Amino acid sequence: MTKTRLEAFSDGVIAIIITIMVLEMKVPHEASWAALEKLWPVFVSYVFSFLMLGIYWGNHHHLIHSIKEVNGGVMWANLHLLFWLSLIPFATGWMGENHFEAKTVAVYALLLNLCGVAYYILLKVIQNCNRNNETFRHVLVKQSRKGMLSMVLYTVAIPAALLHAAIGGAITILIAIMWLLPDRNIEKAEREH
Amino acid sequence: MTKTRLEAFSDGVIAIIITIMVLEMKVPHEASWAALEKLWPVFVSYVFSFLMLGIYWGNHHHLIHSIKEVNGGVMWANLHLLFWLSLIPFATGWMGENHFEAKTVAVYALLLNLCGVAYYILLKVIQNCNRNNETFRHVLVKQSRKGMLSMVLYTVAIPAALLHAAIGGAITILIAIMWLLPDRNIEKAEREH
Amino acid sequence: MTKTRLEAFSDGVIAIIITIMVLEMKVPHEASWAALEKLWPVFVSYVFSFLMLGIYWGNHHHLIHSIKEVNGGVMWANLHLLFWLSLIPFATGWMGENHFEAKTVAVYALLLNLCGVAYYILLKVIQNCNRNNETFRHVLVKQSRKGMLSMVLYTVAIPAALLHAAIGGAITILIAIMWLLPDRNIEKAEREH
Amino acid sequence: MTKTRLEAFSDGVIAIIITIMVLEMKVPHEASWAALEKLWPVFVSYVFSFLMLGIYWGNHHHLIHSIKEVNGGVMWANLHLLFWLSLIPFATGWMGENHFEAKTVAVYALLLNLCGVAYYILLKVIQNCNRNNETFRHVLVKQSRKGMLSMVLYTVAIPAALLHAAIGGAITILIAIMWLLPDRNIEKAEREH
Repeated sequence: MTKTRLEAFSDGVIAIIITIMVLEMKVPHEASWAALEKLWPVFVSYVFSFLMLGIYWGNHHHLIHSIKEVNGGVMWANLHLLFWLSLIPFATGWMGENHFEAKTVAVYALLLNLCGVAYYILLKVIQNCNRNNETFRHVLVKQSRKGMLSMVLYTVAIPAALLHAAIGGAITILIAIMWLLPDRNIEKAEREH
Repeated sequence: MTKTRLEAFSDGVIAIIITIMVLEMKVPHEASWAALEKLWPVFVSYVFSFLMLGIYWGNHHHLIHSIKEVNGGVMWANLHLLFWLSLIPFATGWMGENHFEAKTVAVYALLLNLCGVAYYILLKVIQNCNRNNETFRHVLVKQSRKGMLSMVLYTVAIPAALLHAAIGGAITILIAIMWLLPDRNIEKAEREH
Repeated sequence: MTKTRLEAFSDGVIAIIITIMVLEMKVPHEASWAALEKLWPVFVSYVFSFLMLGIYWGNHHHLIHSIKEVNGGVMWANLHLLFWLSLIPFATGWMGENHFEAKTVAVYALLLNLCGVAYYILLKVIQNCNRNNETFRHVLVKQSRKGMLSMVLYTVAIPAALLHAAIGGAITILIAIMWLLPDRNIEKAEREH
Repeated sequence: MTKTRLEAFSDGVIAIIITIMVLEMKVPHEASWAALEKLWPVFVSYVFSFLMLGIYWGNHHHLIHSIKEVNGGVMWANLHLLFWLSLIPFATGWMGENHFEAKTVAVYALLLNLCGVAYYILLKVIQNCNRNNETFRHVLVKQSRKGMLSMVLYTVAIPAALLHAAIGGAITILIAIMWLLPDRNIEKAEREH
């Protein structure tokens, strides 16, 4: 029962974060193609952040779906994750408005890294109160493996972005692709369960 | 269970999109009828987009209500639909602020076309994991017939809007009316089921 | 099942409308009491609209709670209500920013009247598919009696506000008070049911 | 059943409040560290308010989870709480933009005090319709003890902030820490129940 409300609250916050981001795409005052064209960096960063938040929502969904027990620790670890996610519209807007300037890409990668760390902490906190849960163990193994790899790559992406924005950006895109590749095993485990 | 969360998340995002749009109607600083009157194109485009999002919500509701199975593919196809829907406030604001200028109507029709394509993809992805489901088949037949007709009409509306905004607008309104005409059959099938 | 999603969507939209309104209270750039004081009309109109939306949420809650059947007509009548409610932040902001100028109070009363009409339509549409439902009949009798009285009073409040803002405002406040007075009978009927 | 909708609505409003606050952190137009640095007071006040709203959400969750009966009085007491919570983004933005100027900290402490009073009223209203409920009694004892202490401390914090912003701020932070210290007993009582 408690789990339902945690899901509802997380869904609400992620849904709002994802939709609020579009407010950074300020409506141009003229009806020219040029005015629309000028928005492309804001648009591209919006698309990417939408994708990242979609990945988080999907993973969060799989994770919470696999567990039964939720306690105060899980609630706080979850709020901690939502806190960092809530900063994504800000970092997205800053990066978009400044046309992927090196510093903004580095800050964006740093923020995604912090989101990753927060997700990892959530995984560990959940692990503490969900021992002897086979479905969760499958999710945990997959997600913490990918999670750890992401954190390493983000940590590389931050200084890389400061050297050259495109390299930092490429690594960040690579991480997103890695998460998009499906983990058939998780779904299989869930179904068997 | 998974289905419930997909619904909750979609409802959340659509509810936010629909409500955020009203923020484009900037509160005028003077208390004159003239100041209010100047807002009419923003208001008209708001009304129309509200209607379109209402149609999407209704159809989405019928669609998800008719199915039992939800998998990773459905989640992503759903997110893809929500992505295009999330751009509606932007296109609405641009069209309204520029008094239905030809280019803005064309972009608006293009966006609605992309939403339609995304909805069609969602239908197809759901079809893959919901075979032998009579209720869904009814929804699918109705929605994909109307959906395909919409896509053809939108594709005509885009160049038509560039020639003359009013023609593009008229076609777009026509499509909305087509969706508003009730499909008694769907509800009947659901009830029988 | 369908009813649940109608509730969830309505809750979402009303929750967003209520919270978005606070964005009209622009944060003052100076830290002086004077800067805060200047906000009082915006604050007062926010308080009142919050109250009105709370009343609508409560009534909507009682209404939907009392019924079993929901169909396409109810969904559209509900969306129609949400449409007018979604304009409340705009009317609130306009009235607050212009210090309750006659025209803004009249428009505000007009909007509340339209919300009332939309609610009344919703009642009637629900009535069509919920015959032989004792609990709903109780809600219907109470809400349509108060509803009709409200519509009469709002219709008086609109020209009254144009003559003198305070009279229109007073009538509007009176209507809110009328709705706040509890209907013990409804809750009793629900409990007995 | 009614309880579920109260939870859903509260979750929605709190989720929106928490996420809307981030909009006060205006995206800087330049990509410099200096531009980012200038945002620190806005960021710090955002972090603190996020924490406070997280505490409220957690407590609200525990509270509603422990009860069975919900009536009209609870609905209004809950809306009253949500009203004061909805002003947190405003007070947060004002405090952040004015670099924790004495008056803004005092107003912030005053608002948190009013939120505390509203929560206390909610506790009392719930108590009236949930007698003979052992789980609720545990929550009540803990939360009203901490609640009363908070109200005393906030009442001290308001004039203290006017004398020196840092003292008022320190007391406010102290209260947050007090709420973060876990009440193992509540969770235990819930589990036993």
